[in-house]
Amino acid sequence: MTNDSNPTSVQLGLRAVSALPKLKLTADGLIPAIVQEAKSGRVLMMAWMNEASLKATLETGLMNYWSRSRQKFWIKGETSGHTQKVIRWSVDCDADTLLFQVEQIGGACHTGYESCFYQQFDPAGNTLPITEEKVFDPEKTYAH
Amino acid sequence: MTNDSNPTSVQLGLRAVSALPKLKLTADGLIPAIVQEAKSGRVLMMAWMNEASLKATLETGLMNYWSRSRQKFWIKGETSGHTQKVIRWSVDCDADTLLFQVEQIGGACHTGYESCFYQQFDPAGNTLPITEEKVFDPEKTYAH
Repeated sequence: MTNDSNPTSVQLGLRAVSALPKLKLTADGLIPAIVQEAKSGRVLMMAWMNEASLKATLETGLMNYWSRSRQKFWIKGETSGHTQKVIRWSVDCDADTLLFQVEQIGGACHTGYESCFYQQFDPAGNTLPITEEKVFDPEKTYAH
Repeated sequence: MTNDSNPTSVQLGLRAVSALPKLKLTADGLIPAIVQEAKSGRVLMMAWMNEASLKATLETGLMNYWSRSRQKFWIKGETSGHTQKVIRWSVDCDADTLLFQVEQIGGACHTGYESCFYQQFDPAGNTLPITEEKVFDPEKTYAH
């Protein structure tokens, strides 16, 4: 991966993705990945990938990320079992954002909600009530 | 806006958003905004906001951004007329990503497609054919 400018263009060294456009990564070598439930269209989360986590995602069919706060590679569901199976994905017109459509096991959010975007606001910024239930109990899920 | 750490927490100085959580901005004072068509659920684009563009979005009901490449405030649709009216929006559990559900006039992508994510790939990274038509002609739209 070259990393001499911001944003950085790279060509992933994967035979299977020879047609993949050159991705524009941040100076840290990262690209944002939006994750959407394939059937419902609900946006579940956004996380960051580096070249290694994108490569692992394409090779395994399960979402892999790079944690900026922990500076660590992570597989979604490695603790909770709440993996995300890739159905299809897209690169945007600027090649600096990825969108993955997935099958989500359990819920995507560490709080227990299906989506990390459970707190909604109206257009003026007033908080809307949360009308959905949690889909799992995080205390139980992350206890073992 | 304080800007002495990364990520930076700020409280927007808006009366209408007193309940808004403190947002975690990047060192540059930015936060990513995912934009989704409210009716279809299709993800249209991702762009960046700073405090001023978020404030303008909440005050006008139309999506406003910050362009990193041009270092410039921009209103979506200011040239093309393809504005995005905010229906509702969300802050994620980490308060570092925003999701806007909008009514999109015309198309979101400067290429003429409805969504910037028109190029899809299968889970292994093979390119899928583009099966949709452009919703506008960018040469005509951006000519005047």
